[in-house]
Amino acid sequence: MALIVQKFGGTSVGSPERIKNVAQRVARFHAQGHQMVVVVSAMSGETNRLIALAKEVQANPDPRELDVVISTGEQVTIGLLAMALKDLGVDARSYTGGQVRISTDSAYTKARILHIDDGAMRADLNKGRVVIVAGFQGVDDAGNITTLGRGGSDTTGVALAAALKADECQIYTDVDGVYSTDPRVVPEARKLDRITFEEMLELASSGSKVLQIRSVEFAGKYKVRLRVLSSFMEDPGEGTLITFEEDQDMEQAVISGIAFNRDEAKITVLGVPDKPGIAYQILGPVADANIDVDLIIQNVGRDGTTDFSFTVHRNEFQKALKVLNETVKPHIGAREVIGDDKIAKVAVVGVGMRSHVGVASTVFRTLAEEGINIQMISTSEIKISVVVDDKYMELAVRVLHRAFGLDGEPKAA
Amino acid sequence: MALIVQKFGGTSVGSPERIKNVAQRVARFHAQGHQMVVVVSAMSGETNRLIALAKEVQANPDPRELDVVISTGEQVTIGLLAMALKDLGVDARSYTGGQVRISTDSAYTKARILHIDDGAMRADLNKGRVVIVAGFQGVDDAGNITTLGRGGSDTTGVALAAALKADECQIYTDVDGVYSTDPRVVPEARKLDRITFEEMLELASSGSKVLQIRSVEFAGKYKVRLRVLSSFMEDPGEGTLITFEEDQDMEQAVISGIAFNRDEAKITVLGVPDKPGIAYQILGPVADANIDVDLIIQNVGRDGTTDFSFTVHRNEFQKALKVLNETVKPHIGAREVIGDDKIAKVAVVGVGMRSHVGVASTVFRTLAEEGINIQMISTSEIKISVVVDDKYMELAVRVLHRAFGLDGEPKAA
Repeated sequence: MALIVQKFGGTSVGSPERIKNVAQRVARFHAQGHQMVVVVSAMSGETNRLIALAKEVQANPDPRELDVVISTGEQVTIGLLAMALKDLGVDARSYTGGQVRISTDSAYTKARILHIDDGAMRADLNKGRVVIVAGFQGVDDAGNITTLGRGGSDTTGVALAAALKADECQIYTDVDGVYSTDPRVVPEARKLDRITFEEMLELASSGSKVLQIRSVEFAGKYKVRLRVLSSFMEDPGEGTLITFEEDQDMEQAVISGIAFNRDEAKITVLGVPDKPGIAYQILGPVADANIDVDLIIQNVGRDGTTDFSFTVHRNEFQKALKVLNETVKPHIGAREVIGDDKIAKVAVVGVGMRSHVGVASTVFRTLAEEGINIQMISTSEIKISVVVDDKYMELAVRVLHRAFGLDGEPKAA
Repeated sequence: MALIVQKFGGTSVGSPERIKNVAQRVARFHAQGHQMVVVVSAMSGETNRLIALAKEVQANPDPRELDVVISTGEQVTIGLLAMALKDLGVDARSYTGGQVRISTDSAYTKARILHIDDGAMRADLNKGRVVIVAGFQGVDDAGNITTLGRGGSDTTGVALAAALKADECQIYTDVDGVYSTDPRVVPEARKLDRITFEEMLELASSGSKVLQIRSVEFAGKYKVRLRVLSSFMEDPGEGTLITFEEDQDMEQAVISGIAFNRDEAKITVLGVPDKPGIAYQILGPVADANIDVDLIIQNVGRDGTTDFSFTVHRNEFQKALKVLNETVKPHIGAREVIGDDKIAKVAVVGVGMRSHVGVASTVFRTLAEEGINIQMISTSEIKISVVVDDKYMELAVRVLHRAFGLDGEPKAA
């Protein structure tokens, strides 16, 4: 008998029929003797409907009140799922974030979980009840309703698993696991049976949308055993397990996956005086403008000046350029600010590269053979990211996938 | 400066546009220096939508979980109204029933309010904030969400006014006040400027749908000054004030209003042994079957037997007949059970009848002159109810309205 946390997203609970399907899946686990905690999102489309309603009333909805409104989406789902389980003869009880109590800070619309009270859930589990918890929401010290931001239901699932010391947290989604890359780009992409937590983290931060990066971070911090499964397959099999041990027994692939995204734009400040504190003088005003920065690259200087490059989200490209041209450039005496929003980021990820030399050179050679120019390079211990021209992104992903021996049988369409 | 509780029903907050209109009305009162507490219902249609969704999942939805689901309707409205007020530059804060905290018993879907904590609301009011509270909902001792049953938002409004010792509770609705009778039946019906609490109670219990009877009872118990106003008129005027003093200075009408409904059916048990305990032996099994009884009439017996009549809701007519024929009749040895669901109840209400003889005879004479047979009669200190054939209901209401001098100018259509 295990304690299992299952999380079902919006499409999995998108209609009364689908909610009944989820209830049947949960009931099967419950019948096997497992203690079950189920986290659900709002029915698909519901959060967007509520946000649109709010914007009709106030163009920029008050964050506290927006959380009051949008948290109702998950509240409806928990009640409906509890009904569906009771209809199957399974005792179940729903909890809002506030009822659990999932304590968060007061950062409305993007709150962070501080503490979870497991008392009520534990008492229900000991009575054999299925516990159903609203994802995405919590409550601050003063009792105000908060939400965790988009994808926050994954985080709720992982946080509950951590608080309850669950044996496993299963994330049911519309794919059947984590792939070596996006099968829509590379039909030969393979489902991975296992992936390490660090690889998952790098994949998530590099554009893989299977799991929210915050939930992966949470899983890492609290060593939650995480599994990604399909909610639409009658038998989802084993999905992909995110582990904390590198499997020494298996023939470990050097690279686990290729991630990519074209959400970013690059900016370069040319002719920057090469002296201490210059990075802060450039990025401080950018951060003050609430613009997130991803890759940051500064090469060694020459003739007392250097060039400083970084990437931002494509939506914030113009805003960042404005800050740099109006505030930073005159202040530090840089020569010029240039930028390009027609770029894409491609990353190869794998714990295997720790012990294998030559991964970087394989990346560079493979791209060179296709005539793809690398504009920026950034590396971590288990990831190599390159920035290339937008139009070469799919090609880069396909050739790297093949070069690292990741191609499997083409996935049936 | 006064402390005013305003309650707006579902049609008054049925769209973003209408919510903005409510915000403007509240803002005007706030600008006049009043402390404002606003209670709102779910947007019109929303509660029915949520109930339908629940029934798709479970034919008879679990009551606890149904309350979790349907309480979201009001939660959406409070957030939206707070946004609308903030958009007008008025500081406002929304509260769910649980956040206030409105403590109820645990009778899901028909909970009763036990206690209201005024601490948080009072603190906000003292800061000049408009307090917005979700109607219809509360929370039990264990933190479970409860709802108060249909029309419960009126009760929330009155209960908050009582807890806060508000100067007035204003119920905004789709009519502009309480009328001497339904203007759709009698075009000459007059809007009443004032009505006593007891009259309002009798009117509400006799079919006037302007206020929920529970909210009127609550107002009576806690002496809440209640006013009914139109939410759709730009200037709703003074509406109708429900007072606790009979106004001695004014020329008091003997009768304030005529109420009516055709929701009931009558049942008579013929040839009942005339002995102590017989009423209980008849109505006990009816109550056990969860059937509410309204009028009860037993006349003096003759030859050791008597006839016992009562009315039930028309929807429960067949069920009540079944109980009487199968359980009661053989047990007490009654001769026969007969019934009729083509009846209507008409009631004349007025505190003036306490000091005026002849009200009853005026009722009976007026109906007799029109050839309307009276099937049952029941009286209280300020009300005379008669049961007549369904098809005479409108006629009975019109002739009684005229007989008691209630006719005014015909209301413009």
